[in-house]
Amino acid sequence: MVNGIERPLDLLNNSKGKEILVQLKSEKQLVGTLLAFDIHINIVLDNAKEIHNNEMKRSIGLTFLRGDTIVFISPASSASKH
Amino acid sequence: MVNGIERPLDLLNNSKGKEILVQLKSEKQLVGTLLAFDIHINIVLDNAKEIHNNEMKRSIGLTFLRGDTIVFISPASSASKH
Amino acid sequence: MVNGIERPLDLLNNSKGKEILVQLKSEKQLVGTLLAFDIHINIVLDNAKEIHNNEMKRSIGLTFLRGDTIVFISPASSASKH
Amino acid sequence: MVNGIERPLDLLNNSKGKEILVQLKSEKQLVGTLLAFDIHINIVLDNAKEIHNNEMKRSIGLTFLRGDTIVFISPASSASKH
Amino acid sequence: MVNGIERPLDLLNNSKGKEILVQLKSEKQLVGTLLAFDIHINIVLDNAKEIHNNEMKRSIGLTFLRGDTIVFISPASSASKH
Amino acid sequence: MVNGIERPLDLLNNSKGKEILVQLKSEKQLVGTLLAFDIHINIVLDNAKEIHNNEMKRSIGLTFLRGDTIVFISPASSASKH
Amino acid sequence: MVNGIERPLDLLNNSKGKEILVQLKSEKQLVGTLLAFDIHINIVLDNAKEIHNNEMKRSIGLTFLRGDTIVFISPASSASKH
Repeated sequence: MVNGIERPLDLLNNSKGKEILVQLKSEKQLVGTLLAFDIHINIVLDNAKEIHNNEMKRSIGLTFLRGDTIVFISPASSASKH
Repeated sequence: MVNGIERPLDLLNNSKGKEILVQLKSEKQLVGTLLAFDIHINIVLDNAKEIHNNEMKRSIGLTFLRGDTIVFISPASSASKH
Repeated sequence: MVNGIERPLDLLNNSKGKEILVQLKSEKQLVGTLLAFDIHINIVLDNAKEIHNNEMKRSIGLTFLRGDTIVFISPASSASKH
Repeated sequence: MVNGIERPLDLLNNSKGKEILVQLKSEKQLVGTLLAFDIHINIVLDNAKEIHNNEMKRSIGLTFLRGDTIVFISPASSASKH
Repeated sequence: MVNGIERPLDLLNNSKGKEILVQLKSEKQLVGTLLAFDIHINIVLDNAKEIHNNEMKRSIGLTFLRGDTIVFISPASSASKH
Repeated sequence: MVNGIERPLDLLNNSKGKEILVQLKSEKQLVGTLLAFDIHINIVLDNAKEIHNNEMKRSIGLTFLRGDTIVFISPASSASKH
Repeated sequence: MVNGIERPLDLLNNSKGKEILVQLKSEKQLVGTLLAFDIHINIVLDNAKEIHNNEMKRSIGLTFLRGDTIVFISPASSASKH
């Protein structure tokens, strides 16, 4: 799975169309399908859901998320695989 | 609905003239009609209302909002659709 | 009223000479007449008054305000109209 | 008094040699005579005094103040005039 | 071991494919295998695990981490060697 | 004393070789002899001492101080003269 | 000792290969041997140790430290000499 990751943005490119977990600088998390990103790590998620303390707080659907609010982004499939 | 979103700003462009939900870095939210935005994600909302803890706090009407105060922006119609 | 707002700064340009409400990142607000602004959203207000918890705290008159302290700017007339 | 203020920095230019009030992002304030400023809003005050909760805390004399610590700058004469 | 480190990024380059410890500005830490980094110190970790107060909190697998959330990065092998 | 201060950095230039007081964004202060500075207001102090609540906490000697941690810089001689 | 310090980075250049004390914006400190630095004040330390409240908390060995987390850097030898 890690083939082809030479630069950090390669991971985001590989994750387009897939579900990702986004950890925010606030303690909240978003999960959703990655549709687009740019060099500022601004991203667009589809079907986004806000999670806090492992509980789904609300469904926010299609969402533009500012990159400077993000700590990390992980493909949702990768946690269980490792 | 997600057709045509290749870059994050495409979602904002598609949302012009529509109602959006804006989550601020403070715990507050604004809802209003998106009139304009720029590359700093500065936006202008019409009919903006400030919401805190799911309660409408005040109506602030036409509003210029600085981009660096924003966490995410979601078309108000998308939460219920997903 | 929203005619002619194609870019966010158009709203500030339309508000020159008019009373505006400025929400700061601190919980305070300023109201005053917008005299000038620049691309950093630095602004000059005349007759500025500082407001906290809906109470007028002090009159600060002519004031230069740094843009990076601002959350939103709203023409004072727009809240009541909507 | 507000004649000739087309850009925000015009107010600072008009205030050279005059007493100004500087509100810092911390709750403190400085008053002093504006000697110089630059585009970062770094300023030099002469005869600066630090004020907290309306009390003079200490005299700091000639002072270089970083612009990124400032909320607003107001000519000391303007509060009483309005 | 310290041969060949003339610029700070040389240490990251030497650590590719190896396990590193990443201290975040929040009190959390991540450990994982460094796959890629860029000049913003954005990094990609494989097999990442989140650690807080010396306890493993969760496995997050393949992860893109924003550089501006990082305090320091240390090859996991170096602590015990010194 | 204020002759020749046309730009803010002129005050720092005039203070080279003299004792200065540096107020940090944390509540701490440093005093020491200014040896060098750059446009980021990074400075080098010799004989630096850390002060907190008017008490000398520790002697740190020769010190490189990052500019983005600074609120204000004042020549130590100027407070008493005014 | 202070000969040859005309610009702030000269002190870091003089400290290569020597032990330094690094005060972080968090209350922690690192001590270690300076191997490399860049214009962002990113540094690499060898034999780094984390110190909090004058107690050694942990040995972290070879470490890349982001410049934006630093308050000041002092050659470890300079405190005792002054």
